[in-house]
Parts: sequence; structure tokens; C-alpha cells
Amino acid sequence: MFTSDDLKPMLEPNAVAIIGASGDKTKISYKPIANLKEVGYQGEVYLVNPKYEEILGFPCYQKIEELPEYIDLALICVAAKSVLSIIKQLHAKKVKSILIFSSGFTEIGGEGAKLEEEIREYSKGNHLPICGPNSLGLFNLNKQMIASFSSLKACDAAAIAFVTQSGAMGSLTHTLATEMGIGFQAFVSSGNESTVDFFEYIDYFAKSPDIKVIGGYLEGARNITKMNRAIKASYENNKPIVLMKVGTSVIGADAASSHTASLAGNAKIYQSYFAANNVVLVDDEEELIDTLSLFHYAKNISKDGGAVIVTQSGGAGIMMADQCERKGMKFATLKAETKERLSQTLPAFASIKNPVDMTAQVNQNPQQILDTLSVLVEAIEVQTIVLYIQMTDHLFTPIIDKLSKLIKQANKPVVVCWSGIQEETKKAVFKEKSIPWIPTPTRTINALAHVVNYYTAEKQAYDQTRKEIRKQTPMIVNEKLNEWEGKQLLQSIGIKVPKGSFVRNQEGLHEHSLPFPLVLKGVSKEITHKSDYQLVQTNINSQQELLQFYEGMINRIKHHHIEHLIEGMMIEEMADEGIEVIIGAINDPTFGPTIMFGIGGVFTEVLEDVVFLPAPITESQALQMIASIKAFPLLNGVRGKPKSDIKELALTIQTLSEFCLSHQGEWREMEFNPILVHKEGNGVTAVDAVIVGKKQAEIYS
Amino acid sequence: MFTSDDLKPMLEPNAVAIIGASGDKTKISYKPIANLKEVGYQGEVYLVNPKYEEILGFPCYQKIEELPEYIDLALICVAAKSVLSIIKQLHAKKVKSILIFSSGFTEIGGEGAKLEEEIREYSKGNHLPICGPNSLGLFNLNKQMIASFSSLKACDAAAIAFVTQSGAMGSLTHTLATEMGIGFQAFVSSGNESTVDFFEYIDYFAKSPDIKVIGGYLEGARNITKMNRAIKASYENNKPIVLMKVGTSVIGADAASSHTASLAGNAKIYQSYFAANNVVLVDDEEELIDTLSLFHYAKNISKDGGAVIVTQSGGAGIMMADQCERKGMKFATLKAETKERLSQTLPAFASIKNPVDMTAQVNQNPQQILDTLSVLVEAIEVQTIVLYIQMTDHLFTPIIDKLSKLIKQANKPVVVCWSGIQEETKKAVFKEKSIPWIPTPTRTINALAHVVNYYTAEKQAYDQTRKEIRKQTPMIVNEKLNEWEGKQLLQSIGIKVPKGSFVRNQEGLHEHSLPFPLVLKGVSKEITHKSDYQLVQTNINSQQELLQFYEGMINRIKHHHIEHLIEGMMIEEMADEGIEVIIGAINDPTFGPTIMFGIGGVFTEVLEDVVFLPAPITESQALQMIASIKAFPLLNGVRGKPKSDIKELALTIQTLSEFCLSHQGEWREMEFNPILVHKEGNGVTAVDAVIVGKKQAEIYS
Repeated sequence: MFTSDDLKPMLEPNAVAIIGASGDKTKISYKPIANLKEVGYQGEVYLVNPKYEEILGFPCYQKIEELPEYIDLALICVAAKSVLSIIKQLHAKKVKSILIFSSGFTEIGGEGAKLEEEIREYSKGNHLPICGPNSLGLFNLNKQMIASFSSLKACDAAAIAFVTQSGAMGSLTHTLATEMGIGFQAFVSSGNESTVDFFEYIDYFAKSPDIKVIGGYLEGARNITKMNRAIKASYENNKPIVLMKVGTSVIGADAASSHTASLAGNAKIYQSYFAANNVVLVDDEEELIDTLSLFHYAKNISKDGGAVIVTQSGGAGIMMADQCERKGMKFATLKAETKERLSQTLPAFASIKNPVDMTAQVNQNPQQILDTLSVLVEAIEVQTIVLYIQMTDHLFTPIIDKLSKLIKQANKPVVVCWSGIQEETKKAVFKEKSIPWIPTPTRTINALAHVVNYYTAEKQAYDQTRKEIRKQTPMIVNEKLNEWEGKQLLQSIGIKVPKGSFVRNQEGLHEHSLPFPLVLKGVSKEITHKSDYQLVQTNINSQQELLQFYEGMINRIKHHHIEHLIEGMMIEEMADEGIEVIIGAINDPTFGPTIMFGIGGVFTEVLEDVVFLPAPITESQALQMIASIKAFPLLNGVRGKPKSDIKELALTIQTLSEFCLSHQGEWREMEFNPILVHKEGNGVTAVDAVIVGKKQAEIYS
Repeated sequence: MFTSDDLKPMLEPNAVAIIGASGDKTKISYKPIANLKEVGYQGEVYLVNPKYEEILGFPCYQKIEELPEYIDLALICVAAKSVLSIIKQLHAKKVKSILIFSSGFTEIGGEGAKLEEEIREYSKGNHLPICGPNSLGLFNLNKQMIASFSSLKACDAAAIAFVTQSGAMGSLTHTLATEMGIGFQAFVSSGNESTVDFFEYIDYFAKSPDIKVIGGYLEGARNITKMNRAIKASYENNKPIVLMKVGTSVIGADAASSHTASLAGNAKIYQSYFAANNVVLVDDEEELIDTLSLFHYAKNISKDGGAVIVTQSGGAGIMMADQCERKGMKFATLKAETKERLSQTLPAFASIKNPVDMTAQVNQNPQQILDTLSVLVEAIEVQTIVLYIQMTDHLFTPIIDKLSKLIKQANKPVVVCWSGIQEETKKAVFKEKSIPWIPTPTRTINALAHVVNYYTAEKQAYDQTRKEIRKQTPMIVNEKLNEWEGKQLLQSIGIKVPKGSFVRNQEGLHEHSLPFPLVLKGVSKEITHKSDYQLVQTNINSQQELLQFYEGMINRIKHHHIEHLIEGMMIEEMADEGIEVIIGAINDPTFGPTIMFGIGGVFTEVLEDVVFLPAPITESQALQMIASIKAFPLLNGVRGKPKSDIKELALTIQTLSEFCLSHQGEWREMEFNPILVHKEGNGVTAVDAVIVGKKQAEIYS
């Protein structure tokens, strides 16, 4: 794992070398030289190519050996097969970091993958940070430095860093951002990530004082430890991370894994994990830029109050009010005094309740816009202001500087949505560097909702101490456990199961001392869905009925010819009523042991109302998981129904997450469905248990 | 209701008059004259204003009486209170239609609403079509005619008509469309819709031979008959309608109703109704334009095959593949012969499976783009092609004309997504008038999915004959019915309920001849949620238990002091197992009697997994409703569970929809929850019934 000190030479280099630099303008290896020249890089630049003595005024050496010993970053653009030997030579010259543009590695498989593995080993052995291979490059405009073979144009940079696993999508995002008037200050195309990975760059920028917000295009994470570290750093330094995560579909994931050899992974786990850690996930390219822009301009977002929409068109107000509701944004109810002040400012036919409709009248008197905003800036019930404008440009341009001043002085965010703005006006707005601008109503609210939700989220103490969990079982899970064994295990770690008795034959039925009504179940490692064979009989009210039902079940077992699959029968107390939930556990290749929680019974798979979170899970995380499913109102009490025992449910999730971790390597998957959550104070009962041991899983796979 | 013949003079006028026209350029009433001049209107123009003899070369009269008697459309821009008298004068001069710009009517309430009501009455009485008041205007570029006081610029028009209930959002959409290279040919801002409403314009354009696709910004429909007529016309003429429906939130609906006095209505009903009728609903402003654009260019979309994505960047391919899955678009699996042909065209390291990654190599050889597309155009497994480009403009410009030719000749849609395109290049692309262009990957797929889903939908015969439904009851629903009465009613219209018996006292328990197990229920008009008072006892296995439970229930009733609310008890057979669904009925102010269907039990309100459709409902509509809920897999058989009796469920929905219609005016709401849907062939059983009569509702409200 690389530290900020390790990566500083790569991301803020004072001396750069370009290996394989060309003076031929048609060659790809000419471009990095031109880029550095054009952007006005103030550090030292050394080129290596036996054919030239200098290019664009930078000295060119015959060999790497001739380079000075203080190079921070060396750029490599030579054929894949030569890369490793060049890295070795550069390391000998004490070069501190390397950027490989060359492709032909893991992304083509076979021989290429082998070459990259050798580079990875070398980098690891020598603790040498390498960006790429197959990187589009990186830049840091704070250092006036562009290290890329692509046409990444410098721009008026905002305090935004952007990291991308796709060079093309990265450069697209950079272009879109520039068009929106908020260029990136720092940019890294991480390429194949042979050594430094996506979240190591994020970690760097989270700790970098120049950066306020971090964006990224993510196909998949390679290492949960690095991801955790980066997210922790962003939490501690109060820097939002805004990601577009792709590769969520089957075809997309397939394409992603062939693309940069990333693991696209389970989209649901990413979603839940990011939500739990206040990492912002966006839906598309424009939402990514819009959100970064509003985070860049965001300030003083209070937890109280709500958004107010100011328009000169009823239609836009309606549209934005709708979108606020969809995105869960609070809408301000204007106080009487605020309305009174607005009524003094606006014409009589204006609508002075939220959304405020100033009407097209403001075309005649744009000062009214400023006056309206001033009133709302001072209103304590207003948390954020959205101004929707759609007017002839020349009417508006005279107030741009005043609007800019007003926004700068405001103690809350004021976002401007101006549809149909002309290029000239847009430039004038951008020039102020203070006016957050988004072109359409829906996009404005989508982005603003991310910002407001981020700052008003109940943030968890990231490094929350793990709670003392109930005693752990010494039992080793290795083979598949049948329901009886699974329940014994649950009981041993303090999770309640119905009182019961395991019986091997009819005589066993006479030995129990359980009170009626009872449940009778066939016990089998193999048959997961017992109801398919009617191996579950509930509501048994007497010993006589028990004997009858036992007989009936034996007959069904014989009828289905499944005698060899049945290990015995169990009789159990009927569990008290409760809401059915599911808790499951999987071993995710990226996230490791991961807990699934959701609504139980037949609805689990149909509604996919489940969330995932990597173990260990803290109490507040468990509570958050529970609250985040759609069916949460069922647990929280709807329509006069009692509230369920959410606290005990959270403890159960925690207990299972600890069990999963401490027995990591022994199990492949677990599923407890349903777990009945009783009313508050009455705990939970696991009425089914499926635990698949590693060994068993291996036999089956 | 106005016909196309009625509206033709308004939307395709040969002679236009402007009442209150001004020669003062600073006045709002000057703009319409300038607009007509500028756009080069070829019809006759007459102005009325005693102050002028001519303005911009158009003759100006002193009085309306002086106008010739063949005016098609008269524009009114005078104070609200003078409007009606002017309309009367215009009608006397046989003016065929009127457009009112003036505001100050229903949107300000009170006196304004009264003025508008007078205009409505007059229009109705004289069958005089009026657009507005409070309209931004309308245009028809096919007639080179712009009738507006706003700066609606003429543009290179595509065969698209656009109707808007918000002037501002309409002009925004027009501007955005122009920026996307697809101007509207016709545009109507419907204003307050005193007489002609939104769907009458839609109907007109659906029947207009010049128009290929119709877009709209809808706050709410006023009249279901007009809406039905318009949708039928669009179906019969094969013209897609693409709408953005706003006013879905509480605040939005509130703002909408104050805005143009529209009824925002129940968003869920609109959604279901539009989905059932293949009307396309979009989520935001850009999706609206993008979708209109792709419909404009769409051709020959086969029901077979799938989309293929062609990129020069793995990242964009992943992003678009993800989005295809989200939007339910089929993805083509390329045949071996297609791959073979692609491998001959593209470099060895290109990815020739879908998404096809041509790699950045095509920058060197753009001809490869054309060759790749040619292969895919010929591949029968390919239904639509998306080309993602992100290259230096000057490399691409030389192939624009060839690309245009290829797209024109292709027998399937080819959509170009080009991010970061420069203004000059964009203009060159637009000039071809054949290349559908969208700037970002996600937007491209969102729009294309609408088009593909529209053309591949199993269209219902719109005027499908209503099926002969089971006999209707002569019973009049007027008061609230208790469960027993409700079930009697259901039975009378052929819907199965459990066999049962109504008892008034303990003696009644001895008279039944029902087989055990039984259910015992307290019967009450007032208590809807019986389980709150434990008024339901299931699984009664013997006469002795029945007597015990009866006693217990009597005690609970006494304990809760609800004796006066209980009309008696009912005993019923236990219904067979089944999936719980809900069927409900409401009287919607816009849609009239409307059926709700969804998953039943406690999940209904928590998951909001319900759909609505106005009665009457045909068999195929009922089947579509059933298939459209998220929990449909439960009914259709999941995890080895049997398929439910969907056919009988559909018949039940139809039967109830017919009942609702034929007893319209007698009831206020109905709810049957749950209805148990048994396995295929075993029908359905309604196990609860709540029917609230109109009279009862009036007492309560």
C-alpha cells in the first residue's frame, strides 16, 4: 500500500523524464512533450531518445543512464515487451515513480498479462509506484503539469480531483466539466492498475490540502483495505467522493473485466457499502459533473430548513418540486415574515409561496431577482436556494456581477439553473467563478440533492469501536449443516431458535416435553426447500395429531423416494408471530465476508429488497441496513401494528457478521430465512438455518 | 369536442388578424407582428389598432368591424376584462379561431376565473375554438407561421409537433431541441385551456399527415374522452406520443393546480394508463428531446435481434451495456459470421463481441468505423446500432457525409453518440439531416430504449371489443356494506367467496353445515381492520373449538367496548392456499371509475406495488396489469412453485371493472384485500370485501 509520500512524486513531480520521446509530431510519443510545453510546466523535463538532442527546447539524452538522479516521474511510451527492462533501468537511476502509457498487457490477456505480472512483482519488491500500464495519463494543474499522450486541455481549474479506470470516459468527463465551467485540478487515468490502484489515488487526494471534492469513474475495486483507507481519509478530511460505478449489468461486468481486468463485482454490495459510508453514487455522466460542481461551490448547509425554488415560470417550479420529492429533499415552508417581505418585492400576481414564481415580469426589472434572493438568503427556514432563469440574455447580463456578489456573500448555497443560455452569457457567468450553473431543472435538483443529503446525513463515526459481541462458538463449520445442526450453532452464539427436539424414529416422539402447538419437520442437508416435499407440518395441537402427521410425512418421504436424503425429524415449538426477514452471508471476492439483510419469505427474491454490507458490522451500520430496505415500515410498525424488536435484530446482524469473520475460510454461504422479528422487547427467532461449509461447497462445485 | 376541421384554421391559418397590435417596439403587442414578418408568413395579415395605418407593411384597421370575413385566426393581446367583448366582435366577423395571449384569468382566481368561465361558455355556445388565455402562442413552420409574443425562433424543422401546458417549459424545450439539431415543426402553448385542451391539439397532430411524432409537457388532463380520442388517433396513425408529465409530488401538484388550473391527478394512474396505451413517458427535459429526436429518425425496428454498441472505448461500452439492461433493451449476440467479418475489418486487439470496441486505432483510420457499421447493418441479429465516438474532430469530419449516406441506406436505426463534439462539427452533422446525435452514452440508451420498446411492444387493438362479462347484480350500493353483504354482492356477480354463514348469536353456530377447519369473524361496517381487535380466528378444527373461540371473541368485543359496532359474526370455510392480491376501485376526478391491482396483504401499502387502470378493462389489459407488478413472478410461479390462476384473476379484474362502471354513482370506493389466487385451474377467492357506498361516504365527508 502506497502512502501520500510515496505518490507525491507521481502526482506533484518537480522533474519529469519521458522515455521514448519523439520529435515526430505524428507520433504518439511526441504529444507528452507538447503537452508539458503548452501547459507551461515549471519543473525540469528530460527526454530520452538516441535520435534527438533536444525537442521543443527540452534536453534529450541517448540513454536512461544519463538522466540525473532526482527524477520524480518517468513517462514510458515504448512497446510492451521493453517496458520492464526500462523500469529496471529507471529504478537504478532512483526515479521515484513511473507512468506507463503503453498498452498490450492484461487487457489483451496471455503474454500481455504475464508481462504485467512481472511489472507488478518488480514494483512490489522495490516499492516503486507505477501508474498504468495502459493509462491515458495524469495531470495536476496546481503544478502546471500534464503527463499524457492525449489532448487533455488545461482549464480554469476548480479544487476537484478526478480518478478514472477508463481513459476515454475520463477524458469525456474532463471535457464535459470544462464545458460546465468547472475544470479538474487533478486527473489520473489509472489504467490497468498494475501497482497503484484507484482507491490509492483517492486516498492521496483525500489527504491533499488543494482538493475539496473527488470524483471518479469506477469499474471495480481491487482491494477492500485500500478502499476502506481511502473512504476513511475522505471522511476524516470532510471531502466528498462522487463516483459513477459501471459494470452493473451482466454484459457490462463482462465487458468491464475484459476491459481493464477489473472486478465489476456485486453492484448491490457496492451500493450498500457506499451508502453506508456516505460515498455519493451518481447515475450518469452529466449527474457526475453537476454533482462535482455543486460540491465545489457548496457551503454551510444546515441540517434544518429546506430548499426553496425561485422561478419566473410556474412550469419549472412544478418540475423541480416534483424532483425534490423524488430525491428526498426537504422543501422549505416559507414563514409569514418571509412571504411578507417577498410580497413587498414582487408584483401582486407573483406566487410568494414555495416554489416562488416571480413571473415573466422580472424581464422588465431584473433587480427583482436580486431582491428576492436577498430576502431568501436571510430567511432561516431556507437551507438552499435554486434560481431558475429563462430570459433574454441581454436583460440578464447587467446583473451577473451583482448576482455573483450576492452568492459569494450568502451563508447558504444558491444554485442557478438557466436553460437556453447563450454561449457569451455562459462565459460571463463562468468568469465570476462563484455561480454554480446547471442547464436544466431536473439535473439541478438531482445534483443538489446529492450535496444536501451528503451534508445532512447522520454521519457515523467511521472508526467506531466494534461492540463486544456475544460469545463465539468453537464449532468448525466445514460440511453443510442440516437445519438441526445449523440451529444448534445459532443457539451457541446466542441467537434464539424455537425449542425443539431431534428424533430419529417414532419412539423419539414420545420423549419430548414441548408444549403444543408444535411443528414437525423433516431434516435433511440436501433438501433446502422443504415445502416442495411437504416436509413441514405446522399447527400440531396434540400428541395424537403429532403421531398422525409423523406417519403422513414418512409416507410422503417414501412416496418421493427421498428416504436416503432424510437424516431424521425435528419437532419444535411454534414460534411467536413476527415479521419475516432474511439474513444471509456470502464470501464476496472483493469485499470478503458480507452480510445480506432483507425482507424474508417468498418476497426475498421477487422484490430483491435486500442490502449488503461487508463484515464486521457495527450497531449503527446494522440499524442503517434495517432502515434502508423498502419494507422497513413493516418492522417499524405500520397501520397501528406494533413496532418490531429492531434492536435485537441489529444485534443478530452484528453477531452473525462477527461469526462470519471469525470463521472465515470455513463456510461458503449461509442463509437464515425466515428470521421472525417479534414485537419490541420480544427478540427474534430464527426458524430456518442453512449453512454451507467450504468443504461441502468444494464437493459440489 | 373540436375536430381537425375545427382546429385547422387555428393551426394552419391562411389569414391572421392581430387585435391590439402595436407599432411600439417596446410593447409586447409588437412582437407577434415582428415574428410573422421575420418568419416570412405567406398568408394575409391584418392588424387592428386605431393609432396606426400600417405596421411593418401590414395594413392596420381602426376597428374589428373593418376586418374581412375570412380571417382564420385572430390574436388577442389586450387587458383581460376586454377580451370577451372582442371575441364577440370577432365572432360577428366570422373569425374561425382565436388565440388569447392575455393573462389575468383562472390563474389568478376570483374575478379572473369568472372572466374565463364566461369565455368558455361563449366558445362552447358558438363552437368557436380558442387557444389560451395565458398562452405563449403557437407556430406551424410548415405554413411559415409564428403566432406568439415570445421570441420563438424558427428552425430547421423536423416532423415533430409539440404541445405544452407551460409556456416557459415549452419554449425551453423548443430551445433545447434546436440545440440538438431537431427543431419542432409545430408548437402550441395551450395556456389555461378555456376551450381547446391539450389532448385536442394532440389529436389534431395525430391526424396531421405532416407530423411523425408528437411531444408534450403535461400537467394534467381535463377530459378523459378527449384524451382517449387523441391516444386512439395516435395508435391508428402509428404516431408515437412522448410526454413529460409533471405535478407528481404533493407540492408539485399544488403548484400545478395554481399554475394553469390543471388537475395534476394521481401520478400512478397516469403512469399505468399511458403504459397500457403505449404513450411514452420520459423522466426529464433532455430525455424528452432525445426521445423525440430518435423517434423522428427511427425506421424499420424489427421485433427480433438486439442492440449492438460500437465504441472506440471499453468504458463507454460498459456504461451503455449497463444502461441497456436497466432499460430492458435486448442486447444482440453477434453471430460467428458477423464476428468473422468484423475481425477482417478491425485490428487484432479490438473486441469483436458486443459491445464492439474498435479501440482508439480508428483515429488513424476512420474508414474502419464505416466498415464496421456496414458489417453490422447487414447482420440480421442486429436490430439497432449505437456508434459511440470520441475523437479529434478533424479526423472525423471527412467521413461525415459517408456516415450520413450509410445511415440513410441502412434498414435499421443507427444512432451516433458523440461526446465532446465541437460546435463546428456538430453543425456539419446537423446539416446532413439524417444523423441522430446524442451527446452522452446514458442519454443515448435512455432515448433509444423508449423507441425500441415502443415499436416492439405487443400493441393492443385499441378499440378491442368489451368481453361479455358475467351477469351484473341489480343490487344498489348506497351505504357502506359490511363484509358479509360485500361478499354476497361479489357472489352475485360471479366472484367466488368462501362458503359461509352469518350468525347473530350463539344459537346460530349450531345451524351451519360447513366442514372444518373454519374461520370465525366479527362482522362490522365500521371496523375495516378486524385484526386490530382480533376479530378474526382461523384454523378452528371442531365444533367445540368454534364455541370456545366464539366466546373468546364476544369477550374481546366487550373488553374493547365495541358491541355497538358489531352486526354479527360469520363463519366460513378456510380458503385454499393462494397468493394474496388486492383489487380496489376509486373514482378518480379525471379518469372516472378506476381499478387498482397489486400485491395484497401487509405488503400493499409498504411496497406500493400497485397499478391503476380506468374501467372498463379488457382481458388483455387485465393480463397486462397483472404482469406489470413487481411481484408478478409470485403469481407466475417462482422457485418451483405452481403458476397461479392468472386467467381467472384477469376475469375477476374485468368483472369488477364492469361492475364499477355499471354502478357508477352508487359507490365511493371498494377494496378487496386479500383476494387469494389459487393455482392454475383453481380460480380465485375473495376473503375480504370493503364497499363504501356514496351515501355513506357523504355522511363521513
